[in-house]
Amino acid sequence: MIKHALNVTREADFAAWYQAVISEADLAEESGVRGCMIMRPWGYGIWERIQRLLDDRIKGVGYDNAYFPLFIPLSYFEKEAEHVDGFAKEMAVVTHHRLVGDGKGGLTPDPEAKLEEPLVVRPTSETVIGTAFSRWVQSWRDLPVQVNQWANVVRWEMRTRMFLRTAEFLWQEAHAAYASAEQAREQTMVGLEVYRSFAEDVAAMPVIAGEKPENERFPGAVATFSIEAMMQDGKALQAGTSHFLGTNFASAQNIRFQNANGEFELANTISWGMSTRMIGGIIMVHGDDDGLRVPPRLAPWQVVIVPMLRDSDEDAALLDYCEGLKAELVKQSAFGEPVRVLLDTRAAKAANKRWGWVKKGAPVVIEVGGRDMAGGNVSMIRRDRLYREDGKLDSAILAKGDFVAQAAGLLEEIQTALHSQARAKLDANIVRGVDSFDALKAHFEGSGKYPGWVEVQWAKPTGEELDKAVERIKALKLTFRNVPLDAAPADGTCMFTGRPAVERILVARAY
Amino acid sequence: MIKHALNVTREADFAAWYQAVISEADLAEESGVRGCMIMRPWGYGIWERIQRLLDDRIKGVGYDNAYFPLFIPLSYFEKEAEHVDGFAKEMAVVTHHRLVGDGKGGLTPDPEAKLEEPLVVRPTSETVIGTAFSRWVQSWRDLPVQVNQWANVVRWEMRTRMFLRTAEFLWQEAHAAYASAEQAREQTMVGLEVYRSFAEDVAAMPVIAGEKPENERFPGAVATFSIEAMMQDGKALQAGTSHFLGTNFASAQNIRFQNANGEFELANTISWGMSTRMIGGIIMVHGDDDGLRVPPRLAPWQVVIVPMLRDSDEDAALLDYCEGLKAELVKQSAFGEPVRVLLDTRAAKAANKRWGWVKKGAPVVIEVGGRDMAGGNVSMIRRDRLYREDGKLDSAILAKGDFVAQAAGLLEEIQTALHSQARAKLDANIVRGVDSFDALKAHFEGSGKYPGWVEVQWAKPTGEELDKAVERIKALKLTFRNVPLDAAPADGTCMFTGRPAVERILVARAY
Repeated sequence: MIKHALNVTREADFAAWYQAVISEADLAEESGVRGCMIMRPWGYGIWERIQRLLDDRIKGVGYDNAYFPLFIPLSYFEKEAEHVDGFAKEMAVVTHHRLVGDGKGGLTPDPEAKLEEPLVVRPTSETVIGTAFSRWVQSWRDLPVQVNQWANVVRWEMRTRMFLRTAEFLWQEAHAAYASAEQAREQTMVGLEVYRSFAEDVAAMPVIAGEKPENERFPGAVATFSIEAMMQDGKALQAGTSHFLGTNFASAQNIRFQNANGEFELANTISWGMSTRMIGGIIMVHGDDDGLRVPPRLAPWQVVIVPMLRDSDEDAALLDYCEGLKAELVKQSAFGEPVRVLLDTRAAKAANKRWGWVKKGAPVVIEVGGRDMAGGNVSMIRRDRLYREDGKLDSAILAKGDFVAQAAGLLEEIQTALHSQARAKLDANIVRGVDSFDALKAHFEGSGKYPGWVEVQWAKPTGEELDKAVERIKALKLTFRNVPLDAAPADGTCMFTGRPAVERILVARAY
Repeated sequence: MIKHALNVTREADFAAWYQAVISEADLAEESGVRGCMIMRPWGYGIWERIQRLLDDRIKGVGYDNAYFPLFIPLSYFEKEAEHVDGFAKEMAVVTHHRLVGDGKGGLTPDPEAKLEEPLVVRPTSETVIGTAFSRWVQSWRDLPVQVNQWANVVRWEMRTRMFLRTAEFLWQEAHAAYASAEQAREQTMVGLEVYRSFAEDVAAMPVIAGEKPENERFPGAVATFSIEAMMQDGKALQAGTSHFLGTNFASAQNIRFQNANGEFELANTISWGMSTRMIGGIIMVHGDDDGLRVPPRLAPWQVVIVPMLRDSDEDAALLDYCEGLKAELVKQSAFGEPVRVLLDTRAAKAANKRWGWVKKGAPVVIEVGGRDMAGGNVSMIRRDRLYREDGKLDSAILAKGDFVAQAAGLLEEIQTALHSQARAKLDANIVRGVDSFDALKAHFEGSGKYPGWVEVQWAKPTGEELDKAVERIKALKLTFRNVPLDAAPADGTCMFTGRPAVERILVARAY
């Protein structure tokens, strides 16, 4: 039996395993501030990679980055009634702008410095960005406006879990205004496609892109689309959303333009966002019982070189050899970028370093000892294939030049392998043909801990009928995820209403 | 006389000119939220360039990026008494975590959701990062720790001015802990040198690096160093600071390690930060009466191509020609990066576009009309040399291929020209040899509006003597800036104490 690097397996306790990966891979830690985590360098490094590659794609579809205030006056929320109902509940509210001594050696908010109007720490920025749009947009010539913001936002969540649900989190939010609903709908799908292709190609995370049902829409949206990824416990994670807001926000914020005929019209707006939650998804899609496996495109370091130093005279030559290897590797290009290589010279035992990088999920770990150097070789571990069939660590000895020549191809191979493994799990765990509520119930009650997702046919009920359907699946701890864009047409009966089905929707347990 | 693009000149009203540049160059605007600005795409684009190039340098000296909470519990400030005195006064305080209806159709902080301990929106992160360091550092083997954070911070300033002093601003803050004071002092200077070289080489902004006097130190610091830049009105702008904190913060936050002999010692910490204030400096160093001039290394677009479209059959060919030009230009490399080229196809008059880009300060604007195309040419304006000697716009016609071949060199030439111009102004406006307070007074009262800086000799007074000196220069609206690292040794008498001087310090009006 393999002795894995973590002391808890996915099988034994998925939630504990998730926390163990975060801790053992040095991704993040509790901060002591309620609901707020500290993203440690390796975790934040993955976020920096996400930022850079997603940012390129967002700019590629015509958005400029800008930056809007952290604080939103209370009155902005009052304008948007539906929005208030959905978001205004749990938010951090700034009421004072000064601290003073409390007379007991401590500090307290100064009663003399109470704000006339409280400020809300942004939970999302539709209201403040929409207000700016209303100034920027006067004529049809000013449209479209497309801006993106990288920012921190705060939602006062009662139960938090690192990366998946934290009071403060980091994200990007893209906001745009168009002259027509048609164009805005089209661009909502452009945003969704940015997420789908980013998840698949960069995060090696297969996803299902589709439209959320009415009860799962963003407050104030006419339509919400998502990408849904399957975690290794069979649950769904919404990894990015794109919203068509129609004229709902434009009306509240007065985003109005004069069309070519001189008539005033409301603009149609959209918004789309992806957050640090994505890292939680990467952990639960790619992690294994030895820790994280970072897709090479997102790995802060793709190749880590560990010299087997022995406090001996040979160390200097060994370091030279490793420096030479690094110099050759950084000249290679993988995925159109120079290979990212770290030479780990910290004062620690080589075996501890090796397992540290395995737990962090560096795609390739190279060890170089005296014997490797003498033979002009390196010892290589690839993170996607850690063990041989006999359960021993799969460390391959390669000629240094051969490894350098293969490195970029190897990284691309690992990227593809992670994607294929995850794709196979997703495909194998979407069940179709469940055609009654009893069968749905039987599936989820009878499939053990990891029942995957079920694609059911439904009549797309609304109002009370939808509420009732939501209630029924909620009793099974299930939620409606989305109506896949590429689902087959409906040809059966709706298990909730008994009427002919009009589309197929995914049902799953979810984060 | 030249008719400039702005309707106010630096000479006529520097403060109004500054606001005009921000507005006309689309850098930023008021947000409607007190003290918070909106950074528009061109302004934020400059910040993104600053981020990328400064980030490379910070990583280059061994720092990893990480992310710490926005909120700091009140009690963290109480631990650090000196720090509280300096910073705790004007800060945004979160006291509630929920909004509810106020019964009058509006919203109000929910009295039921009052936080037990108020949270302060970070004005800087020494306390929260230091608390993390205290967990991370146990042994000498854990040192040094070097992390950097890109973040928003909030200081509730009473008088705000865009970029220079805003309630919320963006910055990076580097924090590190070392085993010895010597090492920490050395690394404080590494941080300062990052800023000095970044300002000079990237922002084309000549600066004086030096140590701040005691009264200008960061609260809690043992020593504070700064880079000071001279604005075109002769005032100084502190553009970056690096602090040696000794064991002051380590003691409050218990950053303690076991040394090689097994004894416990306090770590020595440092911090250094640069903010969006830098953009205010770039405006006031490089701007002219036609708007901003962005140093090419920081320009979001270095070359902007404006096709002279006429809604005619020729337009398609003209666009093809411009696309071809762009394709050739982006293959060129300036400053080790591909040249950043925008083809401006917006529906607006070519002349308006030209002046728009002049005001924004794009380093090179290329116009292409039918005649240019027919001749295989382009018309070029370079932003550092906008007018000919006769006051006419200096638009040069070049063969397209010649322009492409010269483009990278031209950008490098413009970068150097901006730096040289600013360097000449700085050098010409530091006055030395003012050896009595009366002479100092006479200089600042007699030098018109732009008296520059004076380097005086002083005895480095402390305590009450220093307070008195500060009072005296304050009456002249002056402040002590810094003791330049490369100042000549003192050889005179201190104008404040009458004792022999020990060093030279810069005195100036300042932002």
